Parts: sequence; C-alpha cells; structure tokens
Amino acid sequence: MTSFEFFRNRRTVRRYSQKQVSTELLESMLEAASQAPTTGNMQLYSVIVTRTQEGKRALAPHHFNQPQVEGCDVLLTFCADFNRFVKWCEASDAKPGYDNFQSFVTAVIDTTIFAQQFCTIAEMEGLGCCYLGTTTYTAPEIAKALDLPARVVPLITLSVGYPEGEAPLSDRIPISAILHEERYQDYSPEAIKAAYAAKEARDDSKQFIAENGKQTLAQVFTDVRYTRANNELFSRLYLDFIVSQGFSLPDSEVK
Amino acid sequence: MTSFEFFRNRRTVRRYSQKQVSTELLESMLEAASQAPTTGNMQLYSVIVTRTQEGKRALAPHHFNQPQVEGCDVLLTFCADFNRFVKWCEASDAKPGYDNFQSFVTAVIDTTIFAQQFCTIAEMEGLGCCYLGTTTYTAPEIAKALDLPARVVPLITLSVGYPEGEAPLSDRIPISAILHEERYQDYSPEAIKAAYAAKEARDDSKQFIAENGKQTLAQVFTDVRYTRANNELFSRLYLDFIVSQGFSLPDSEVK
Repeated sequence: MTSFEFFRNRRTVRRYSQKQVSTELLESMLEAASQAPTTGNMQLYSVIVTRTQEGKRALAPHHFNQPQVEGCDVLLTFCADFNRFVKWCEASDAKPGYDNFQSFVTAVIDTTIFAQQFCTIAEMEGLGCCYLGTTTYTAPEIAKALDLPARVVPLITLSVGYPEGEAPLSDRIPISAILHEERYQDYSPEAIKAAYAAKEARDDSKQFIAENGKQTLAQVFTDVRYTRANNELFSRLYLDFIVSQGFSLPDSEVK
Repeated sequence: MTSFEFFRNRRTVRRYSQKQVSTELLESMLEAASQAPTTGNMQLYSVIVTRTQEGKRALAPHHFNQPQVEGCDVLLTFCADFNRFVKWCEASDAKPGYDNFQSFVTAVIDTTIFAQQFCTIAEMEGLGCCYLGTTTYTAPEIAKALDLPARVVPLITLSVGYPEGEAPLSDRIPISAILHEERYQDYSPEAIKAAYAAKEARDDSKQFIAENGKQTLAQVFTDVRYTRANNELFSRLYLDFIVSQGFSLPDSEVK
C-alpha cells in the first residue's frame, strides 16, 4: 500500500477489541511521535496515560460518557505544557516570559502536532484512535482529575486500542474547496453549494437530518451538535481556565 | 524501513533543491491529508498555496525574511477557517454560533492536524518541510497579503520542497520526561535536570550559548529567541486580530 492509499483510507475507530496495547509499544510510539516538528525544539506538551478502569471511569463524565472512554484500552490526554520548560528556565538562571496568550497558542500547536503524529504512528501499527472534542469543554474537571499544575492545559484526548470490526470511512469535501491559489478566493453561493453538495446527498446525512428532526444538515450542526449556547459557555469556561492556569490575556482581564 | 524508523529519523528541511513539486502531487498530498481527523467532520481550515516568486517575496518580510520562504518550492499557509462553514450554514437556513473563542480553538486544532498530516505525507514522499513560527506573529500582514476574509486566521506556514543535502536530526528530551502515568507527576529539580541533561551536554547547545553570549541554554530561549517583550507584543497583536476577524472573547473586550 502506498502512503497515499494508507492516508486516504484511514478511519476514526470508536470500538476496540479486548487486545491490549503493550506498554512497550505505547512508549515506542510516543517516543517516535516526539520527533515531530516542535517550535524551537521546546516540546511544549505532556501526555497523561490512563490505563486503569478506575482512571477511565473518573474521566468518563468529563467526556460526556462517550462509550470509547471506558471502552478503549488506553486513554491519552495531551496537554499544552509550559510547566516543564519554565521550571527548566528557572533552574537555569533564566527568566521565562511565557505566561501569555502567544505562548499558549505555541503550546497548542506543538501539542496538536505531537498528538496527530502519535495518531498516525498508531494507525500504521494497526491500532485505531478517536479524538474526543470534549477536552476543551471540561478542562477544569479533567485538570483536577489528572492533578495538572499551573501552566498545563488539557487540549486533546485520544482513545486508543485495537479496532473491533471495521470502522466506516468518513466523507470529506472536495480538496478544491479547501485550496486557494496565491490568494484566498472567497466563496460564492455557487461555490458553497458545490463544496457541500456530495455531503448533503449522502444517505447518512439524510438520516442524520431526519433523526434530529431538522430540515437541513447544517441545522444539525447549529441547533444540535455545536450550538451557540454551548460554544459560548465553553468559551468562557476554557478561557477562564487558561488564564487561571497562568496564561494571561493582554490588556484585559476575563471576568 | 518500519514506520518507527521513519518517524524517528524525520528531519526538518530548510534547504531545497531546484526540483519542482508538481501541482498534481501537491494536490494529491493535500487531498490525502484531508482524511485526517477533524472535529465533527467540519474541516475548519483552508490552505493558501504560494508558488510564484512574487507571492513568496511579498510574504518573506512577514516571516522575518527567513531564507526558506523564497528558497522553497511551495509555501503553504494553513488558516483556521470558519468562513466556509458559516457561509454553508447561512445558505442552509441554519443560524451559526461560531463567532467565539471555543470555535477558534476548535479550528486551530483542526488546522494543525491537517497541516501535520500533510507534513507527514510530504516527508513520506521524499519531500522536506519546515514550520515557520512567524505566522502567529504577523497574522494581520499575512492576512492582508493573502486576502483573508473575516473568520479566517493564519496559523501555520510550511515551506515545502525536495531536500538539498542532508538535514540534521534534532535532539529530543527523553520520552519519560513527557509521559505521566495516570496522574501528572510534577517535576522535581532533579527530574528537570535529568530531562535536559543530554540536551545541555550537546556540542551544538554549547556553541549556541557561546554564539549568543549567554551562560545557560535556557537563557538563549528567554533572552534571545522567545523573549517576554516579543511574546507579550505578539500576544496582543494576535489576540486583537483574532477578535477583529470575528472570534469574540467572552465577557470582555480586548483593548
């Protein structure tokens, strides 16, 4: 299989077999992933490995009890981490200036690159992964459950294990709708229609609309899955938490 | 080569040969990368492809004239993009609620996953890439050069091309210093020392300290590479820009 075929056929895996991921394999994958790009070679991330049933059970409500939390073999919480680097600076007679928004964004990029490199390596080893978007919704609770100190913010959770059954291939919009040559070409109504036409025509999309009692697929997103009320609530909770963990906002304070 | 060996040996490539990356290959790689995980299958990103010498020259100062901007074959600017999705919602009788910080963070994660998946695919195809950290420093200027509309924020720039010569392998701290079992084990002074000992002992680190007239390696970061003054300046500029692009902060306004 060429790398193109492999990447075009990757799937998100939510159901896992009983087969365990050995500690040796897990650490080898994480170590290989740490060779991924990182800003200034600072490696601004940590990962918390949850393998015990007790640990997964404690985290499950913070992921809205999605079944893959308790159903996976290993749960990995990837955190944007300036704690280790700042402690190194302080131990090295250096005055760190990383208690700010730019540093947080840098750590977010570093952490996501690392998590995605791990995900790719795991998939190439025959494992399956699922990103849990809930991590930024309940960060304070996750941080408490995992004893996260200041300057450490949970960002991404991956459930990991050997796949049970075959996971479906997700659809994507045409790459032409994502690519812009030299300058951003804003979308005309026709371009938007073309970009989402195939997605809207899918049977599973129609089923999704019907199940949720909506008229359009976009309404399932705006009214059910990612609502304004939730987005605004989680914006406040997450930003407050980031600030409380030591990343201040410039010239303003979050109430 | 196993995937472990491949990922453990990947390098950041800053020097490129004259060989061109064909448009077909570039689009195939981006298309394969778009199968990477994405929140709720929303694909909250766009990529601007800069291939013309004129386009690269216009962007170079916004990347502090790092030579790989004009020296690469293709420059890719990955943007967190809620514009396309919001336009789809509006065209679909759905009321989007994505003008907030949580939505921005979601788009940042999506965009970084996509960029890193592209980077991996490109490296497996024999190409070399380099992340330019400058993108979040000069976002307003980059946005202007690339005609980015509201709800689109530049996040990551990758220079891409066929490698010229062999790039060095970067060191990384031991994976044991990044991994935490079940709960975060905060770092003792001894643990910090152990984590950074090998890095500090390297000849290139010592040379780096000497070249910058510093006493410790950490001081090169705090006093030269990523200073408080710059971080605070870029925090303000980037956050102001995010807000001006339509992602409001909760309960407060950036001055």
